Amino acid sequence: MAEDVGILVLGHGSSKPYNKEMVEKCAELIGRSHDGPVKIAFLNMDEPNIAAGLESFAGSGVKTIVALPIFLAHGVHTLEDIPTELSVDPTLRRGSCKLNGSEVEIRCAEPLGVDDSIAALAYRRASEALR
Amino acid sequence: MAEDVGILVLGHGSSKPYNKEMVEKCAELIGRSHDGPVKIAFLNMDEPNIAAGLESFAGSGVKTIVALPIFLAHGVHTLEDIPTELSVDPTLRRGSCKLNGSEVEIRCAEPLGVDDSIAALAYRRASEALR
Repeated sequence: MAEDVGILVLGHGSSKPYNKEMVEKCAELIGRSHDGPVKIAFLNMDEPNIAAGLESFAGSGVKTIVALPIFLAHGVHTLEDIPTELSVDPTLRRGSCKLNGSEVEIRCAEPLGVDDSIAALAYRRASEALR
Repeated sequence: MAEDVGILVLGHGSSKPYNKEMVEKCAELIGRSHDGPVKIAFLNMDEPNIAAGLESFAGSGVKTIVALPIFLAHGVHTLEDIPTELSVDPTLRRGSCKLNGSEVEIRCAEPLGVDDSIAALAYRRASEALR
């Protein structure tokens, strides 16, 4: 994707450090593929929160921010809480915000969902448990 | 893995149908690779619960059940709640149960964790959001 597209990688957040570590590492891996800025934010418990995550793109020159939930499936968090925090229409799943006085488009990506790669990784974890 | 190994695919559960649908589909895909029985159970809200999920292996002849959390990262659910529900030691992450009077070993698998395949799938979801 173009370098004027920012990706805001969104995690659930947790009282333990593992969700944040996973989201940070995932954002790092995504950053290896993506030419634009990649930032992180969390819905609960961890920092930065979503508002601060959006603000972190200020000065980057992005014209669009894709809010990318690192969630396995849709649920209340992806369908209601994240759009609300982003102030975007939960049905359209897109909207805009102002950063440094410029209008920036926001798009909500779908969660990971079912994919052969997820099933293959899960089966690998099952195999590892027998060692 | 051998056909006397059962896999209990564990989901978080949700008030919406999407988590259950994702777990069911994931279990179906895992079942295409695995020779033994594959069942599902949920921690919250959806059925069957974990106790009923274990019971669903009765009569299958499995000697080991791998509890496989379809979670992205460790947290309270994978480290505490799931071992508690399975009545296995949360540190050893293994134990046993009785099914039809026979002792069956239980092993807790690790969550999916960070993997290139997860990052690649997430980046694909970000790209799709721009269409």
